[in-house]
Amino acid sequence: MFDNISIIGCGLIGSSILRAIRSKNLAKEIRIFDHSKEVITYLKKENICTNVFNDIRQCTMNSDLIIIATPLSSYKEIILSIKDSLKKNAILTDTGSVKKEVMKIMHNINLKDIHWIPSHPIAGTEESGPKAGQAEMFKNRWCIISPPNNCAEQPINTLKTFWERIGSNVKIMTPEEHDKVLSLTSHLPHAIAYNIVRTVMSVEEKLKKEVIQYSAGGLRDFTRIAASDPLMWRDIFLDNSENISKGIDSFIEKLNELKKAINDKNGDKLYQIFNSTKEVRKEIIKAGQDTSQPDFGRKKD
Amino acid sequence: MFDNISIIGCGLIGSSILRAIRSKNLAKEIRIFDHSKEVITYLKKENICTNVFNDIRQCTMNSDLIIIATPLSSYKEIILSIKDSLKKNAILTDTGSVKKEVMKIMHNINLKDIHWIPSHPIAGTEESGPKAGQAEMFKNRWCIISPPNNCAEQPINTLKTFWERIGSNVKIMTPEEHDKVLSLTSHLPHAIAYNIVRTVMSVEEKLKKEVIQYSAGGLRDFTRIAASDPLMWRDIFLDNSENISKGIDSFIEKLNELKKAINDKNGDKLYQIFNSTKEVRKEIIKAGQDTSQPDFGRKKD
Repeated sequence: MFDNISIIGCGLIGSSILRAIRSKNLAKEIRIFDHSKEVITYLKKENICTNVFNDIRQCTMNSDLIIIATPLSSYKEIILSIKDSLKKNAILTDTGSVKKEVMKIMHNINLKDIHWIPSHPIAGTEESGPKAGQAEMFKNRWCIISPPNNCAEQPINTLKTFWERIGSNVKIMTPEEHDKVLSLTSHLPHAIAYNIVRTVMSVEEKLKKEVIQYSAGGLRDFTRIAASDPLMWRDIFLDNSENISKGIDSFIEKLNELKKAINDKNGDKLYQIFNSTKEVRKEIIKAGQDTSQPDFGRKKD
Repeated sequence: MFDNISIIGCGLIGSSILRAIRSKNLAKEIRIFDHSKEVITYLKKENICTNVFNDIRQCTMNSDLIIIATPLSSYKEIILSIKDSLKKNAILTDTGSVKKEVMKIMHNINLKDIHWIPSHPIAGTEESGPKAGQAEMFKNRWCIISPPNNCAEQPINTLKTFWERIGSNVKIMTPEEHDKVLSLTSHLPHAIAYNIVRTVMSVEEKLKKEVIQYSAGGLRDFTRIAASDPLMWRDIFLDNSENISKGIDSFIEKLNELKKAINDKNGDKLYQIFNSTKEVRKEIIKAGQDTSQPDFGRKKD
């Protein structure tokens, strides 16, 4: 599909894209760049990719598609390093979880003759690093792309086809819409997961051991979410601060309503609250976003 | 192990105990009682148990072990109905998620010649009803028992052996300790799960569809928890209101700390928050309370 693809950053997502491109045979040549020696050593050792570059410009200069799969805070430096040596009409994309801030950076950098089209594959696990990557990571998952207003049709279609070829369903959204929706479906839930784990673990030392021992009653499911890469999440929270902060305000408002029902021992109100969320789950299963298999009963390997 | 066991309430937990007793052959006779015609019809049709009683006293009067597996709010009525017709030295237990309030009720009823020893098997799925029950539900799961101070040794050991025979690891705790630990590991996490789903679903109608569509980014894991039986959870929140309310206060305190870091765009603080929770997950996996298999990537059946 492409002569040459470059991937910048080969962690969980970057290495999964790499594996998917190889397995679907979508490029004659794949070039990779990663700051981390450990990542490079792993990819070479496992023979996942040996076409490694130490110079980011060398890595990207001949590529038709450049995919940035690094934390959001590194984008500016990366783009400034490569922007003057990219091939004319190359497609530049990313995999980041926030779009609006990045669009501003790109607007200021003012790339010429390059098609910048941000992507966000909604996929991943709570693990990090190339060891956790898989070629099937994007299969049946959504990928949101947010082309700038002035973007040409053809590169949008090419990028769309690329994500579809590695298994995703592609949806086009504006950066504003993307950041709002993701703040609700992903960023706020992560904030809450981190917060519940921190709250519970701030109990006295004596109780901590018991809390861990009996965590199967609900807590463990939050610790899974709260084990994701902290650097990635820091950047997401910095870039989408306004939407997340608003979400936290609504959350606290609702939580105070629940607390009042608890303190008032208002059984009817509690039942109404606990009953109102069942329907949502059914809709999520209907939308193919989760299985209906019960999961609480899972046991140790 | 017993001549006769009665199970009052044959939903998810009660029917799982029933199946486990049958599969391990722990009673010569099992008698069941349930208010719901639907439940009875199902159990008979599937030949899980046909020894069904319409009169709760008839059901329990000859039993050596009586297990109450109904919502907490029904205990008082049940005990008052059966207390004068129970066999001398019978063991009476339950499966409820809160202990202190029930201990008060039992103390006031003042049972004579009956060994009341509350149990809490920490097991279940997000589903309800006998169809979702399984004989293996309690295998390798904790069961907490909270014998009253004046309880004899022998019935405690008998009940402990019963739970062990159906696969559980038994731990003895005071009602106060139980309610505190469970408020942290289970009740507060459930409060938060219900609350995040309610918060997110209170957005404008237009956004709702998108929120459901992209829920795989984190939200869907909360909807799973928030799909549990609302009546059961209402009763838990009424009975353990003090501990849960305190937990909500600590949670809001921590959440305001996170919100401040977001609004201040304090990257160091955010990193510190997101990094502090990774260790807990490792400890939970070490304690055998979850698998290390990544789970985010799960797909539609």
